[in-house]
Amino acid sequence: MYHLTALVTLLAIAFYFFVTINVSRARSRTGIKVPATSGHPDFERAFRIQANTLEWMPIVLPALWLFAIYISDAIAAAIGAVWIVGRIVYFIGYSQAAAKRGPGFAIQALAAITLWAGALGAVVLRLV
Amino acid sequence: MYHLTALVTLLAIAFYFFVTINVSRARSRTGIKVPATSGHPDFERAFRIQANTLEWMPIVLPALWLFAIYISDAIAAAIGAVWIVGRIVYFIGYSQAAAKRGPGFAIQALAAITLWAGALGAVVLRLV
Amino acid sequence: MYHLTALVTLLAIAFYFFVTINVSRARSRTGIKVPATSGHPDFERAFRIQANTLEWMPIVLPALWLFAIYISDAIAAAIGAVWIVGRIVYFIGYSQAAAKRGPGFAIQALAAITLWAGALGAVVLRLV
Repeated sequence: MYHLTALVTLLAIAFYFFVTINVSRARSRTGIKVPATSGHPDFERAFRIQANTLEWMPIVLPALWLFAIYISDAIAAAIGAVWIVGRIVYFIGYSQAAAKRGPGFAIQALAAITLWAGALGAVVLRLV
Repeated sequence: MYHLTALVTLLAIAFYFFVTINVSRARSRTGIKVPATSGHPDFERAFRIQANTLEWMPIVLPALWLFAIYISDAIAAAIGAVWIVGRIVYFIGYSQAAAKRGPGFAIQALAAITLWAGALGAVVLRLV
Repeated sequence: MYHLTALVTLLAIAFYFFVTINVSRARSRTGIKVPATSGHPDFERAFRIQANTLEWMPIVLPALWLFAIYISDAIAAAIGAVWIVGRIVYFIGYSQAAAKRGPGFAIQALAAITLWAGALGAVVLRLV
């Protein structure tokens, strides 16, 4: 069983959920009404944080699980936890200014690519 | 095996697919050409319905499967079916007016959060 | 085990990742700064290619895996590979002009629907 990977998956979803709720809060704060998605820089940054986090979910979740199945539940969960930390740093930075989104983005990208590359290596080893 | 959860997954995808097709139909109806995503309120609502349904897919699908694996295939599938019903109510309401999107949104959110919370509880119980 | 399906999943993610990186490159080329997502047709096409590919990920990945589990790893992987080819054709066409996005879109849609319909048929057969 993959209890640690399951836990990290649910925590990643919880953080993504928080980022989604944050878009609604940014709507109230800036007065941008649905269905508009632009019109105030603070709202647009909150919206892009959520969109970018969503964009990476189909990269990180399948890579996380394939890494867990082919390599190790504990290592997958540890790297997945780094991904969440990177996403939190990204959220805090980008919420302040677009120019501050770099470090968090780099951390989460590195974690996601590590999961992907590890899983790919392990799958290819089984096939050859 | 998780036949009921697999069935609900495929039905959720089918509904999401219908919502995606509906954006193309709204393009024809309102004359908003790709790659534009704004310019007519009817198109923008159809676009936001699809975007919002997409945004919830990475919450509901992993939570649904972890609930099925850790708790019960039949209960997961039943709650997943409630999620689809909530999404249909949301689609019908939001298609009419942005102000009518509330009830359907609440139903699907409650279903998704139940799947998530149930899975989290079950995973944590195995770990402690 | 589902080694071929795992491989195709990782390749699909890699292509999606490339399409995401391409949005950043289109930002540099056209001067559209974050968090803006419109303002230049070349950027908007790159953005829509990525958005559309993201929109289909929750359709194709679950359908691919349910097809692999219920029918065949090798057939699922082969159809998944066709999906990636369709996405590449879509990327090349849409990058040139919005009017050239049709053939690639049709190929990937047909592949995704085949995975979905095959998985649904197989799941229903087990349930009845």
